[in-house]
Amino acid sequence: MQTDSIAMTPVTTDSDHRLGTVGIFGTGDFGRTLGLRLLQAGYQVVFGSRSPQRSSLLPQGAQVLCHAEAAKTAQVIFLAVHRDNYDFLVPLADRLAGKVLVDISNNQRRNQYLEPNAHYLSKLVPEASVVKAFNTVSAWSLQSGGLDANRQVLVCGDSAESKQRVVDIARSLGFTALDKGTLLAAGEIEDYPLQLFPMWRLPGAVAVGLTASLFAYVLLTDVIYTWVTSNKDMSFRIMVSLANMVFPMVSLIMLSLCYLPGVLAGFLQLYNGTKYKRFPDWLDRWMLCRKQMGLLALAFAFLHVLYIMIFSIRYYVRYKVVSWTISQMKENQSEFDNTVAWYTDSYMSLGVLGFGLFILLGITSLPSVSNAMNWREFRFVQSKLGHLTLLLCTSHTILYGWKRFLRAQTYRWYLPPAYMVVLVLPCVILGLKLLLVTPCVDRILMRIRQGWERRPIPGGASDTTRANGKEPLML
Amino acid sequence: MQTDSIAMTPVTTDSDHRLGTVGIFGTGDFGRTLGLRLLQAGYQVVFGSRSPQRSSLLPQGAQVLCHAEAAKTAQVIFLAVHRDNYDFLVPLADRLAGKVLVDISNNQRRNQYLEPNAHYLSKLVPEASVVKAFNTVSAWSLQSGGLDANRQVLVCGDSAESKQRVVDIARSLGFTALDKGTLLAAGEIEDYPLQLFPMWRLPGAVAVGLTASLFAYVLLTDVIYTWVTSNKDMSFRIMVSLANMVFPMVSLIMLSLCYLPGVLAGFLQLYNGTKYKRFPDWLDRWMLCRKQMGLLALAFAFLHVLYIMIFSIRYYVRYKVVSWTISQMKENQSEFDNTVAWYTDSYMSLGVLGFGLFILLGITSLPSVSNAMNWREFRFVQSKLGHLTLLLCTSHTILYGWKRFLRAQTYRWYLPPAYMVVLVLPCVILGLKLLLVTPCVDRILMRIRQGWERRPIPGGASDTTRANGKEPLML
Amino acid sequence: MQTDSIAMTPVTTDSDHRLGTVGIFGTGDFGRTLGLRLLQAGYQVVFGSRSPQRSSLLPQGAQVLCHAEAAKTAQVIFLAVHRDNYDFLVPLADRLAGKVLVDISNNQRRNQYLEPNAHYLSKLVPEASVVKAFNTVSAWSLQSGGLDANRQVLVCGDSAESKQRVVDIARSLGFTALDKGTLLAAGEIEDYPLQLFPMWRLPGAVAVGLTASLFAYVLLTDVIYTWVTSNKDMSFRIMVSLANMVFPMVSLIMLSLCYLPGVLAGFLQLYNGTKYKRFPDWLDRWMLCRKQMGLLALAFAFLHVLYIMIFSIRYYVRYKVVSWTISQMKENQSEFDNTVAWYTDSYMSLGVLGFGLFILLGITSLPSVSNAMNWREFRFVQSKLGHLTLLLCTSHTILYGWKRFLRAQTYRWYLPPAYMVVLVLPCVILGLKLLLVTPCVDRILMRIRQGWERRPIPGGASDTTRANGKEPLML
Repeated sequence: MQTDSIAMTPVTTDSDHRLGTVGIFGTGDFGRTLGLRLLQAGYQVVFGSRSPQRSSLLPQGAQVLCHAEAAKTAQVIFLAVHRDNYDFLVPLADRLAGKVLVDISNNQRRNQYLEPNAHYLSKLVPEASVVKAFNTVSAWSLQSGGLDANRQVLVCGDSAESKQRVVDIARSLGFTALDKGTLLAAGEIEDYPLQLFPMWRLPGAVAVGLTASLFAYVLLTDVIYTWVTSNKDMSFRIMVSLANMVFPMVSLIMLSLCYLPGVLAGFLQLYNGTKYKRFPDWLDRWMLCRKQMGLLALAFAFLHVLYIMIFSIRYYVRYKVVSWTISQMKENQSEFDNTVAWYTDSYMSLGVLGFGLFILLGITSLPSVSNAMNWREFRFVQSKLGHLTLLLCTSHTILYGWKRFLRAQTYRWYLPPAYMVVLVLPCVILGLKLLLVTPCVDRILMRIRQGWERRPIPGGASDTTRANGKEPLML
Repeated sequence: MQTDSIAMTPVTTDSDHRLGTVGIFGTGDFGRTLGLRLLQAGYQVVFGSRSPQRSSLLPQGAQVLCHAEAAKTAQVIFLAVHRDNYDFLVPLADRLAGKVLVDISNNQRRNQYLEPNAHYLSKLVPEASVVKAFNTVSAWSLQSGGLDANRQVLVCGDSAESKQRVVDIARSLGFTALDKGTLLAAGEIEDYPLQLFPMWRLPGAVAVGLTASLFAYVLLTDVIYTWVTSNKDMSFRIMVSLANMVFPMVSLIMLSLCYLPGVLAGFLQLYNGTKYKRFPDWLDRWMLCRKQMGLLALAFAFLHVLYIMIFSIRYYVRYKVVSWTISQMKENQSEFDNTVAWYTDSYMSLGVLGFGLFILLGITSLPSVSNAMNWREFRFVQSKLGHLTLLLCTSHTILYGWKRFLRAQTYRWYLPPAYMVVLVLPCVILGLKLLLVTPCVDRILMRIRQGWERRPIPGGASDTTRANGKEPLML
Repeated sequence: MQTDSIAMTPVTTDSDHRLGTVGIFGTGDFGRTLGLRLLQAGYQVVFGSRSPQRSSLLPQGAQVLCHAEAAKTAQVIFLAVHRDNYDFLVPLADRLAGKVLVDISNNQRRNQYLEPNAHYLSKLVPEASVVKAFNTVSAWSLQSGGLDANRQVLVCGDSAESKQRVVDIARSLGFTALDKGTLLAAGEIEDYPLQLFPMWRLPGAVAVGLTASLFAYVLLTDVIYTWVTSNKDMSFRIMVSLANMVFPMVSLIMLSLCYLPGVLAGFLQLYNGTKYKRFPDWLDRWMLCRKQMGLLALAFAFLHVLYIMIFSIRYYVRYKVVSWTISQMKENQSEFDNTVAWYTDSYMSLGVLGFGLFILLGITSLPSVSNAMNWREFRFVQSKLGHLTLLLCTSHTILYGWKRFLRAQTYRWYLPPAYMVVLVLPCVILGLKLLLVTPCVDRILMRIRQGWERRPIPGGASDTTRANGKEPLML
């Protein structure tokens, strides 16, 4: 309709304020900034204030009235006031009947009040149509027109029409609006800006736990053992050597943990013979945090690379090199060993290539990059290249150990070196994955994922859609 | 109009479902997720199912009817059913007359069927208005509200009004819609999620070809030559030394190939005396994949840096260093050579600065970063800083060679070392670029790019616009 | 309204061109590309040209008429013509009365003309409703549908209705529109694509100034001093050694300068006892470029890391290592010093962790990443982790110096080494920050930031909103 009018309606040049009047109660930072933006976008703005005379900081072009007057003028009113001061609205309830009241408030912490601010407001002024919106937007991002900051405005409310008006305003200010449904969602929306990396909790805990336990293990085998058995103080190794043992191991385990749930899910689907049976909750939760798991693994791998970089400028390493040179000097330099050259160069090269691919996986996890890829490309990178990364990094670690597992002195207090323990998980995962991609198993799994069921329920819905609909992000 | 109403229309509080009713045929993953999102956004949702009783997994609040009943209720109907099952619609054709049928289907592979699914659907139900949309969106990205995934919905259809309705729905779910025109574009839209990095094909092939041939070359001059002439096995060098020779060379050539088409285009425009003559197709195609070419060059440069990092911890290098130390020890350490120190430090420093700038170019190629720049800034980075990067990297390679080209033993089997061969291309490009930016040539080229023609066609259009309109991305 | 119609209105299948007719004056690159996109989006397109017959390059499906005829057909007309040629519109003024004229022109440089192009146009054709828009969009980004390029269209104009039409067109082409107000903003919009990193000016100047002066300082103490006192030529150190001294120092100072304004602002607010007093202008400007300051600091830190990487493969370093080995050989290797091992490893490890965190800060500054975070998460990363990064990097530098400040030969010409001078600023900032986060000071500051005033103005507005509204970006 509206678009159609391009060809028909003549322009009326006196239509300077066709976008209508918006009211703002409260003249704090957010209220002022909102008013300025609304004025810039072509709205008429009326501020409602307890003391209309004190208006020096308000944007030019806005009217300032007392609350009651402002309520009369505008159909949509933003409430830029602390929840604790909402009660000034009670005497205005009549004036506000039928108006759209936009609750933009945030709390200091979760569960600060018993009920969400928007519900409280809705009870105070039951005749008004309360819409929760804009609380995820800061005054700062309003000011910069959403150019450099979060452009998403979450909206909820019981009246679709009221929501539509707020959505229209959000859009004309350069934001995109996301409708979260009825006012029941207000609590969730109010909690949103108070969250602190909820998706990173589990992976973070896993990383901390792994780091702590592996550190204890290598402290035992590499520092305490030497101290107990030879009374030699190697404690200085804690700062770099141990860190550079723990970080790559944590990285490898976390990378494995990225790909384990996918493999488990495959076997579960094979076992169930259908994709319509829900995964257990723990598996679901695990699958949802694979991206974070993988990015933490990358962070640890990056630290490993940085530690490798400073390897040869360390005092300890230089001292050893000089010792070695002197001993070689005294007993004539040993023959150059081609095999040693091959295997050391190979394990380093595998590490380099693995890290290179890992960085690529990380880059494709950036929102703007992954958005530019279609589903098939994303799967190719995160699943195919992801497993290749795991393979390279695992081989890197295996070659690093090489024949060492055959030597007795490797086992201190009968404990295997930490990296051998760590290798178990990725090897198992790679083995299982190999099983899943053998043609015969792969064919069955493919059919299951396309909706085939081993024991179809008679008369059941096989109204399935795309095979790619199920699997969430792979890294 | 609509926005105007903010000031006038009172809110009717019983408007809970003003957004209307949307139908969904099919109760698979995608259908269910779509239904849930539509409900959250305030639509009424009616599922059409062969077996309405089996509705345990469907979102709460949705109605489930048989197909015919559902078709009656909704004006817009999403078809979340495999193409192979579309024929169930034929008996419903009467009911579907005048309805908007949204085809969201995807195929397993390209050209799976003779005609696009949407065309097939359009023939099955000719009275309905078919719109192709949402097939590029996964159930996953629907679920997450488009926050963490591709937000773009491609839409096509013959009726602008039907398209507008689907676009409105897409927007209210938090997506941005891109109209691709009439239903003729359906094939293209259906192919989109089946593509696998189409823009990376050519640069990828170039990279693989270059890597293979340069590897063969250095294998010949560095491993086979030594083996044939001195019977010395240097094969271990393959893993790191050769890789670290091939990767920087491929990087330098690909970086040059990034800037060659721009230089060629400049000379073509100078030769033609106008910018209105189309470039040959191969040049156009080349120019369009410069970004990918440059990013691959960066990946190879990154691998080179990683290999440099592990240089001094390699067994081979350490062995050589010990040998050298011992020989220096025996024949008294030679004098410190200031010139050697200057030139080795210089070539490394150039490499460091070149790589730093290269990383900067890579970062500005990230979609979210390049979007934040205006045209002039983007050109400054990709063209000015890009050519500076090429200059730094080329100088780095030249200085690396230094006086070596004068020594006879450099030429094995009369072959120059690979890096000398590689240097030809970037040197030529830098020379040509230098020619183009000399004031007199630059002035003519500037005028041509602003629309001036050496032989203007009489009465022809010199309705030109901005000078920056022509040149696409420079990296 | 419009959305409501989903459930009611039947689809009229002959509505192929419901979006209306758009006119384009000018058949250059931009005009042609715009025409093509408009056709694809379902508009009818009419080109106005001086020579309608020469239309070979124009997109299929578009009409080509003379200017007067085209003006009659379309209600919205894009002017894809150089400003210098605008005068052809004067005789058409009657025909253009009441039409929406979209000025999309750009200039070559700022202040090329006395008044903005859109104002000039508005004077030429006073009866038309001029809208400035699309000038920030390139033909290239039009072509690619805004997928890979800037999607923002800045719009301004005196008539809200005319603007709305242009906004609708922009949206249907896949762009987001940002309303910048009345035509008074045209100059600003025209300047936008001519800007060259305005936010990077100040931080860039600081970086250049710091680099130059620190370079002069270390040149004096490390090269000239040796040359004057011992007549030893150490000039080769310029390329790597000096660079690797200057870069980390610049990085540390700029990182400090990132956090200094926040600390100053805190003390100012404590002193004023209110957050409602404006900061001085220089502090405001400083706070606005903290992100750029921090990213430059990261770039310098990155160069430092690259220089560290090539440390041990330098000729100079190798020569010194051989000398050292030989001397150790002759006088028997000295005892391994545990304390030295501890402190060297510690300072390197601190550097590694600091750089790792710094990279994390950099990644979260990417627009697409920071958009995915809420305000609290962003503050956590940029403020908490940011200060931790500063602490790690400062400790790294302090440990690097260690006991050296006690030795006389450290002070050449009584000048302290540069890194000691540099350490003053970050130490002061960390000390002040420590003061601000002590519980008693923190509590007062928190209350002030939530709107509390030490000397509240009687009857004044304490209509404050969220505590997070004030502080802009922290890095």
